[in-house]
Amino acid sequence: MSAARTRNALYAQSGGPTAVINATASAVIEAARAAPRRIGRLYAARGGILGVLHEDLIDTSRESPAAVRALRHTPGAAFGTCRYKLKGLDEDHARYARIVEVLRAHDIGWFFYNGGNDSADTALKLSQLSAGLGYPLVAIGIPKTIDNDLVGTDCCPGFGSAAKFVATAIREAGIDLASMSGTSTQVFVLEVMGRHAGWLTAACALAGRTPREAPHLLLVPEIRFDLTRFLARVRDTVKRRGCCVVAVSEGLRDSEGRFLAEAGTVDAFGHAQLGGVAPRIAALVQSKLGFKTHWAVADYLQRAGRHIASRTDLAQALAVGRAAVKLALAGRNAVMPGIVRRSDRPYRWTVRAVPLAQVANRERKLPRAYLSADGLHVSAAGRRYLAPLIAGEAPVLWREGLPVHARLRLARVPRRLRTRFAS
Amino acid sequence: MSAARTRNALYAQSGGPTAVINATASAVIEAARAAPRRIGRLYAARGGILGVLHEDLIDTSRESPAAVRALRHTPGAAFGTCRYKLKGLDEDHARYARIVEVLRAHDIGWFFYNGGNDSADTALKLSQLSAGLGYPLVAIGIPKTIDNDLVGTDCCPGFGSAAKFVATAIREAGIDLASMSGTSTQVFVLEVMGRHAGWLTAACALAGRTPREAPHLLLVPEIRFDLTRFLARVRDTVKRRGCCVVAVSEGLRDSEGRFLAEAGTVDAFGHAQLGGVAPRIAALVQSKLGFKTHWAVADYLQRAGRHIASRTDLAQALAVGRAAVKLALAGRNAVMPGIVRRSDRPYRWTVRAVPLAQVANRERKLPRAYLSADGLHVSAAGRRYLAPLIAGEAPVLWREGLPVHARLRLARVPRRLRTRFAS
Repeated sequence: MSAARTRNALYAQSGGPTAVINATASAVIEAARAAPRRIGRLYAARGGILGVLHEDLIDTSRESPAAVRALRHTPGAAFGTCRYKLKGLDEDHARYARIVEVLRAHDIGWFFYNGGNDSADTALKLSQLSAGLGYPLVAIGIPKTIDNDLVGTDCCPGFGSAAKFVATAIREAGIDLASMSGTSTQVFVLEVMGRHAGWLTAACALAGRTPREAPHLLLVPEIRFDLTRFLARVRDTVKRRGCCVVAVSEGLRDSEGRFLAEAGTVDAFGHAQLGGVAPRIAALVQSKLGFKTHWAVADYLQRAGRHIASRTDLAQALAVGRAAVKLALAGRNAVMPGIVRRSDRPYRWTVRAVPLAQVANRERKLPRAYLSADGLHVSAAGRRYLAPLIAGEAPVLWREGLPVHARLRLARVPRRLRTRFAS
Repeated sequence: MSAARTRNALYAQSGGPTAVINATASAVIEAARAAPRRIGRLYAARGGILGVLHEDLIDTSRESPAAVRALRHTPGAAFGTCRYKLKGLDEDHARYARIVEVLRAHDIGWFFYNGGNDSADTALKLSQLSAGLGYPLVAIGIPKTIDNDLVGTDCCPGFGSAAKFVATAIREAGIDLASMSGTSTQVFVLEVMGRHAGWLTAACALAGRTPREAPHLLLVPEIRFDLTRFLARVRDTVKRRGCCVVAVSEGLRDSEGRFLAEAGTVDAFGHAQLGGVAPRIAALVQSKLGFKTHWAVADYLQRAGRHIASRTDLAQALAVGRAAVKLALAGRNAVMPGIVRRSDRPYRWTVRAVPLAQVANRERKLPRAYLSADGLHVSAAGRRYLAPLIAGEAPVLWREGLPVHARLRLARVPRRLRTRFAS
């Protein structure tokens, strides 16, 4: 028991959803409810940090225990998420002042930001409000990203489930392809998410246990695309195996560093928006080698596929949520609970606090050692790293043939400010 | 018990695989094993009818009961499939003579062809061998297609599982989209298989129970694409719901009947090979309305997704396999076991024999009455038809985080002919 007075807490989700980000939310809510002497109400910001700016807050205390529990098997971001990046405290002073105004109006002492490296940066900046704007706030980052590219954690909640989706998809599609490659399609290309890091594409490798099995070739952003070498390997694979299954990261780049699927548009963070590298690769194979091709782009299916989540991933998503509340109550400002791997087989892991300054705005790419010598598949070390992350199933409930998801009230917290946030 | 002498039987798979075609194979094998006085050996042709022409036969009696059982949860076509169409008995006389040569060499009295409408046509032609070439053969068609476009059956084994995949995918992706549409993507487009019939796209409608929920708009081949009207509906949906989820059939056509995604290539049956209508639709929405879009092409994932098969579909795939053997043993030449619907709710169905002549080369499109008045969604009647087909789950076994599939011996039957099939 602590002598500190009771204050309210705020949870927000940021960036692209994952199959298990709401599991983290459920763990934060349950942990906050378990500490009523310290945490008065846990609010959720609608649409990430934008909900704070707009004083658009949801009272999670109005959700039933059953609804909170159901978040564990609900994809998407239940409280809404955003792509919105704050600049430095000096540059973006008006926004930070507005945030402080909202936090003060609702007596918020703890802030939990559940996202990727951009979100870790936002949480880090908010952790400095005490020093910068005289508002005492404990800000905690909670890791989440299917890209698995956060520094300071062995893996990222959300990744294991997306990895299980793509590995299962490529195993199933590979079996399908092999059964008709004699007279029909010989090459199948699956496009996997990953702008700068090839973690998810690498995870596809788990689908095959022998060189005979799909996937036969992986194309990741860390290895520049060499068309001649790639085509030679496709030709050789079709000759030897009868067909060839390729997994390709959306962020594959050519020898000059240009995205193969450059769409020319950028998202709100200024990142190039990609899509369509699979049809590009398939067209190259078809025109240069004459093989009949098929291609798929999994897009949101891979990150929203809660029906096929990894049990390991779900457990970690819950663990970081619980740990975040524990760290907050211990007054550990500007940290993120990260996963530490204790051993590969049996897989053992624990959670420790990592300074947000080590996480913010950094990107962890696939280590070269996780790839095979030719860069077109994973190494034994890569397989050892990836295998436990997709292990175990996390069944969902079904009704009328479809997965059942949480239905939240999303009760709005009455506004206390007369001022509105403009722009 | 019958006085008829023991003969061998032959089973073959044709056309695109489904999540449950191997379940039908397992039922045929088990039913044949249960009638040892009539059926000596059940062979499987490797790669469909081509395996017959090449005398490339597999002895299914060499497979263990466990392996046969495991076919129930294995996608793809375990014995190989093909896209290969025989012409009429007169035109293609040499091929039919070769087929008779192979059948006679292996004393085959029953032939089961598991496929779509092209395969029903092949089975029908083989059923006429007795009259045409003096070789007594009972030929049975067994329905299979994710397209659900066969005549003579209320629905097609394979369709319900693909329907469950796409409906689940669009529900999950729709939740994902809704959670970040405020600052990011507003429109998501899922491309679904279906060259000429919009059954699978229509099944996506099951994902939403209210107009608020995804999918908001369906684009099927039966309704010519009207860009202006479509864009108006997208704009209106984004305005009212915050986002818009669209499911589109690969075979969508414009007002002049041209495929929107015409790739200019054709498959072995002479059908145009399609792909890429989702990026086309997304680009139109982005350029004309300015909304940020994402798109996915499920391709093989939807027909190979055994991990999310429908229990109803699996039961029907098994039932038509068993019924086929029963019909064969009863000497019912040139028929196909079809599904008859007895009632919608509760869903009741049975199996009856349908003459192949009624099935071959015909296509059953989505009835207009199954679509809403504007043609952009399903009607209550459509929903009533579709709902039971995705009902129930058919769990798979998992090992190391991935679904486990049958490992067959695929033992080759020694050749008895010296001659080889050329071309």
